[in-house]
Amino acid sequence: MDTICAISTPAGLGAIAVVRASGEHAFAIANHLFRPTVGFEALPAQQAKFAHVYDGEQLVDQVVVVKYASPRSYTGEDMVEISCHGSLYIQKKILELLLDNGCRMARPGEFTQRAFLNGKLDLPQAEAVGDLINSQSESSHRLAINQLQGNISQKLHLLREELIKVASLLELELDFSEEDVTFANRDELESLLQKISGEVEKLMQSFKIGNLLKSGIPVSIIGRPNVGKSTLLNALLQHDRAIVSQMPGTTRDTIEDTLTINGTLYRFIDTAGLRNTDNEVEQYGIERSYEAARRASILLYLYDMTRQSVAEVSEELKELGKQVDLSDKEVIIVANKTDIAESSVEKPAQIQNYPVVFISAKMQLHTELVEQHLTEYVEKYAIHDAALLTNERHYDILRSIASSVKNALRGLADEIPTDLLVEDIRAALTDLGTLTGTISTDDILNNIFGHFCIGK
Amino acid sequence: MDTICAISTPAGLGAIAVVRASGEHAFAIANHLFRPTVGFEALPAQQAKFAHVYDGEQLVDQVVVVKYASPRSYTGEDMVEISCHGSLYIQKKILELLLDNGCRMARPGEFTQRAFLNGKLDLPQAEAVGDLINSQSESSHRLAINQLQGNISQKLHLLREELIKVASLLELELDFSEEDVTFANRDELESLLQKISGEVEKLMQSFKIGNLLKSGIPVSIIGRPNVGKSTLLNALLQHDRAIVSQMPGTTRDTIEDTLTINGTLYRFIDTAGLRNTDNEVEQYGIERSYEAARRASILLYLYDMTRQSVAEVSEELKELGKQVDLSDKEVIIVANKTDIAESSVEKPAQIQNYPVVFISAKMQLHTELVEQHLTEYVEKYAIHDAALLTNERHYDILRSIASSVKNALRGLADEIPTDLLVEDIRAALTDLGTLTGTISTDDILNNIFGHFCIGK
Repeated sequence: MDTICAISTPAGLGAIAVVRASGEHAFAIANHLFRPTVGFEALPAQQAKFAHVYDGEQLVDQVVVVKYASPRSYTGEDMVEISCHGSLYIQKKILELLLDNGCRMARPGEFTQRAFLNGKLDLPQAEAVGDLINSQSESSHRLAINQLQGNISQKLHLLREELIKVASLLELELDFSEEDVTFANRDELESLLQKISGEVEKLMQSFKIGNLLKSGIPVSIIGRPNVGKSTLLNALLQHDRAIVSQMPGTTRDTIEDTLTINGTLYRFIDTAGLRNTDNEVEQYGIERSYEAARRASILLYLYDMTRQSVAEVSEELKELGKQVDLSDKEVIIVANKTDIAESSVEKPAQIQNYPVVFISAKMQLHTELVEQHLTEYVEKYAIHDAALLTNERHYDILRSIASSVKNALRGLADEIPTDLLVEDIRAALTDLGTLTGTISTDDILNNIFGHFCIGK
Repeated sequence: MDTICAISTPAGLGAIAVVRASGEHAFAIANHLFRPTVGFEALPAQQAKFAHVYDGEQLVDQVVVVKYASPRSYTGEDMVEISCHGSLYIQKKILELLLDNGCRMARPGEFTQRAFLNGKLDLPQAEAVGDLINSQSESSHRLAINQLQGNISQKLHLLREELIKVASLLELELDFSEEDVTFANRDELESLLQKISGEVEKLMQSFKIGNLLKSGIPVSIIGRPNVGKSTLLNALLQHDRAIVSQMPGTTRDTIEDTLTINGTLYRFIDTAGLRNTDNEVEQYGIERSYEAARRASILLYLYDMTRQSVAEVSEELKELGKQVDLSDKEVIIVANKTDIAESSVEKPAQIQNYPVVFISAKMQLHTELVEQHLTEYVEKYAIHDAALLTNERHYDILRSIASSVKNALRGLADEIPTDLLVEDIRAALTDLGTLTGTISTDDILNNIFGHFCIGK
């Protein structure tokens, strides 16, 4: 493997930046940068050393270098890490010196790709590194770190063992097929395949919530014009404890109105479109509401207690149910303006079987009840499972595995020849190999690691 | 000193981020973050160690930690450096854990301030760290690294020794003043003070170019409308070899049109204002030109060879000289459109004693000659001096020192009493102490380090 290098710290200017080199010639190349010489080959590994980088006669920087010797490094190769002053000029210069002395610029994710190729991580773990770096909320972080720790890998490993067991049972049959052996193991086969099928389904189902937790749970606040939708959103945003979103470079810039409540990221979709609704464009606004509702996992149905009766809200919800499939959505009715509503106003605990919370968005009264409902939704689906699928690639492959396993089960019922059954199981095993990375192609790897940042 | 912490790598998301803690309790505080325990007290210093950060039961990250024991650390205190995955969430979380366990958030530049307070750097060296991080070009980088290496400090140290020598000679006189000793040392005193005065002047003069190299040398392209000013600027920008300026976060976003030629940053000032000049607003445009010219160190006077005669240009230059003091500016005449000019057109080597280069901005013909002249300007003033003053604080203090020394020289000529002479020298020594940091106040330090980035 050639020796690669990159700036591994975030782009821009800072107190410290880290430049790394990894590969067969990392030590020999790095030796050229320092005066007096560091002598990386003889340097004790994992020892931070103060050193001076020179470009010819010109001192470039006073730095700290650490040597990592293969295989005890992130990539599994010989590595050098240079912590320099975080000036753009110095970062660039040190990178240039490494390139001039024989390094190649690392592609995105190439350090992690090498870690994978050298067996330091399997593919889902390597993918988790990318997710970990991109994690913004407690939930998405936990999913990524669990996956990096191997929680998904472990489940896939068990799956693989079970599939191999099925395959070997079938191949035993093939070996003895000439002798017309009895098929005493068909029941065992079926129950094993049913078990596998169930596990695959469960993993696939975990993708639904895993993917939402990773990218933010879509929430839509809908309701008639002027019931206080944007006031509610602002009230929730003011409660926003996500310090992350106040840091530069997070999604706040690109996606409007995301907020983190109890460590989970929520995305408020398309609410902006409803804000300027007036009577003239009301119908268009309602259509937009339906559209937003269809894309949401959670609907906050907001109504104005001072102007809408419970009967009216009930009718509106029925109408909504005709336009939007609510069966897979969490619907929470939010009755607004409790501060100025007559005390005689109806306050049912539920409308159309959906729970109702009574708030004043303007006075920020009881808005924490809304947050509580959002949090309960997440806990209902996710909190106890440490291995949620979050990766679309994994999901797609599992779908293919599920289909192979179902084919095998159908084939078993139809008593098709054993060699055809074996083919289904082998297909599932091949898919699983692609998932964990025991089988990989350059295309697959480039596709996965191409989405990483450079320097990881 | 309390224990401080900060994220030291650039703000944002990246492969790696570094979080540092420094202070008396750095090890004890950091111990709380890791499971299994790292045991920083017993850990060998400067040894990179793989470790797991936990928040209660939840794994936060797999990191590499390095312990630096006082006094062998950047700040001179006990320090812990944590290299984590560069997710915004993780960076924030590790910082929070340090804060929760007793660290205080570091103020901007506070690590370097502590390095200064602990005698690891003098004040000009500490200031150089800030300049180094902000350096964008080879020139500004070299100035900063030279200053960090102590080139300025050395000169100031010599100055101090000379001033102390003057002071002790004078104080010797005072000691024996009762005895009416002969003043055999007055000539020696005067020549010493003259020498000091010369050195201070030289340092002050170096500020002119040093400051320009640091912040970018202001260049103005002026001339009649439609002679090709923006075409020339674009041609120069296309030649721009400054890779730094293509990186995010550099001045390109804020100041328009900076470019690096042969490692030096040039700032093209106020040229935008001239671009839309048409006949109607010509007078206003000319006024803007003069304004830009006044602020520039280098003037590129551009004319159209196909429409302006040398005599006309000569007249224009005279007029310019009336409006703008050209004595301290480098003026280069640039004759444009050499590609379509008649061969009979006059091509003088100089106009009004200013050198002329013949180019075609549109065809990018000979524009490198313009760059050559810019480079020569820098070389003329700067290239051989490793210790140029770049810091306005230093300049202001040196001005005060110069004035004290001049006072002393005048006093010597006027044969004023020795104790008054001593006062001048003591004032100069006090100023010098403020410059190097042997005398410092919280106000001075806050002012200096407040402009640093956090984490340095």
